[in-house]
Amino acid sequence: MSDHSPGLPDVVAAARRLRGRVRHTALERSLALGERAGAEVLLKLECQQRTGSFKLRGALNALALQPAAHRGRPVVTASAGNHGLGVAVAARELGIGAVVFVPAEGSATKRERIRRTGAEVRPIPGGYDAAHREAEAFAARTGAVYVHAYSDPAVVAGQGTVGWEMLVQRPDLRVLLVPVGGGGLIGGVGIAARMLAPGARVIGVQSTATRAMHASLAAGRVVSPPEEPTLCDGLAGDIDATSLALAQQVVDDLVLVPETAIGPAVRFLLQNEGILAEPSAAVVAALLLEGSHHFGAGPIGAVISGGNVDASTLKGILATNGPGPTSPGAEAPTTR
Amino acid sequence: MSDHSPGLPDVVAAARRLRGRVRHTALERSLALGERAGAEVLLKLECQQRTGSFKLRGALNALALQPAAHRGRPVVTASAGNHGLGVAVAARELGIGAVVFVPAEGSATKRERIRRTGAEVRPIPGGYDAAHREAEAFAARTGAVYVHAYSDPAVVAGQGTVGWEMLVQRPDLRVLLVPVGGGGLIGGVGIAARMLAPGARVIGVQSTATRAMHASLAAGRVVSPPEEPTLCDGLAGDIDATSLALAQQVVDDLVLVPETAIGPAVRFLLQNEGILAEPSAAVVAALLLEGSHHFGAGPIGAVISGGNVDASTLKGILATNGPGPTSPGAEAPTTR
Repeated sequence: MSDHSPGLPDVVAAARRLRGRVRHTALERSLALGERAGAEVLLKLECQQRTGSFKLRGALNALALQPAAHRGRPVVTASAGNHGLGVAVAARELGIGAVVFVPAEGSATKRERIRRTGAEVRPIPGGYDAAHREAEAFAARTGAVYVHAYSDPAVVAGQGTVGWEMLVQRPDLRVLLVPVGGGGLIGGVGIAARMLAPGARVIGVQSTATRAMHASLAAGRVVSPPEEPTLCDGLAGDIDATSLALAQQVVDDLVLVPETAIGPAVRFLLQNEGILAEPSAAVVAALLLEGSHHFGAGPIGAVISGGNVDASTLKGILATNGPGPTSPGAEAPTTR
Repeated sequence: MSDHSPGLPDVVAAARRLRGRVRHTALERSLALGERAGAEVLLKLECQQRTGSFKLRGALNALALQPAAHRGRPVVTASAGNHGLGVAVAARELGIGAVVFVPAEGSATKRERIRRTGAEVRPIPGGYDAAHREAEAFAARTGAVYVHAYSDPAVVAGQGTVGWEMLVQRPDLRVLLVPVGGGGLIGGVGIAARMLAPGARVIGVQSTATRAMHASLAAGRVVSPPEEPTLCDGLAGDIDATSLALAQQVVDDLVLVPETAIGPAVRFLLQNEGILAEPSAAVVAALLLEGSHHFGAGPIGAVISGGNVDASTLKGILATNGPGPTSPGAEAPTTR
């Protein structure tokens, strides 16, 4: 794929390319969120995607589209999160070597999960930025192919298959709610929606602590809000000019939900729907639960983009008081 | 369906009947469990089934097979758990009224989840047994159809579609590991396996605190071990002569894992595979992690039968020390 912005044909080609390699995840009605929103709410369950997030789609599409001259070269990226795992699994399945640079300070379990795919894991001290620099230097030195997490057009087209599937499953969706980090997912979903459902609104959601895209759309240029503590590790970090330009074209609104609403939204989905969403995905539920936005008649399609949440993080979320869990010991002994 | 024991044709007919109504869930390789078991391990992800467990299969099959004379009658059951939810959702989709008796002491959130499907929920004080008696009395009084959780032959055939799908997905499975409560799931899976893969071993797993089937197989008759506290609410309770007779025919081994191994197994799956299994489902992982059984070359197919775990229960599991979670705060801030 060339460097120009991808279009619907690229998304459709990606959907064909990914068939049998990714799950056609369910678009499932949430009665509990529907009651709160006063409209039909349908959840796109990418938390049930292979690797636990949508990131596999973009990674597979990008690796499958490498030009012939690059065939056989290893792929490299920096991420101990969903993108790193997506790239590692995609490389394994396409028979390509993978090197994943991860922050040495990060979770050993996450590293191990990537290592098990057969990828080489290189822990780098100094946080994500240092790992990212080392990965780029490695690519320049060795000719390995660097897969960018959100602005590679093949990655965007791959993520767009989420929106393509949703609109095939329910062509009548009036609103699409999409978690926004770097902007790859909403860019791809927006491309699909603009063409397939021109009347539908594409609404991005971020937490107040991960508002790079929100701030950049407001400023009309890439800005980097200061880092803040957040549960939404998958939405944190900067964006770039490519993803901003795409968002300016295909995103209708971008809404912030309070960081404090994220934990309760994770609990709500777990308790009322039996769905484990990672905090970065729960932003869309937080928006519906907050009730400050009225979305009209719906139906509303909301992307639950992933389900990978660290056990220690989840423990913290469940330990917090708030709506959701009922008291322990209140269960009947036998509920078979 | 008549009262005689179901066979493979009943399971195949159920699979056809359920097509498009239940998810053909993934059978996904677990590299982490495979490392521990020294064999290929494939997880049947019924935790990703609609309603969060396999119970929908049996409920839908049973309701679809009601004789014409019963059409239009409401369906009744007693359970605030996966069976209750499965029956409620099945009734909704088939346009049948449903009345679900639940222990008044149980979780309000679970009751609410059933109520949202449109079912009538009747809370009964006095625990599960009282709810069960009331449900049977209601059925006798009103002509409503009582759907038994595990020994109705149509329910067994419906649950058997789990095994049918597994052996279609991977006909080379040598071992099937199945959580055992009342015995409906392993009965159905065993029927499928006996015919489709006669060389494969069907191995049931229970926790030491939920060993009614284990004790009954050992005694050669139905026995009721005293109730013990357990995380495995879906496996607790008694069995009956019907499910025992079927297990005697189709189950090779039945293995107990220590109740103390259940929490760590839930944590292991969450942390290493990003899978939220309910404790009743995690028994199969606990057995593989325990390492006391060597299963030969595999491949091993293990049924992760559900993913509905109460937030308060999960909180307790994650709060316990042991293998699994890494320390909080050890995460890199940005892992996109």
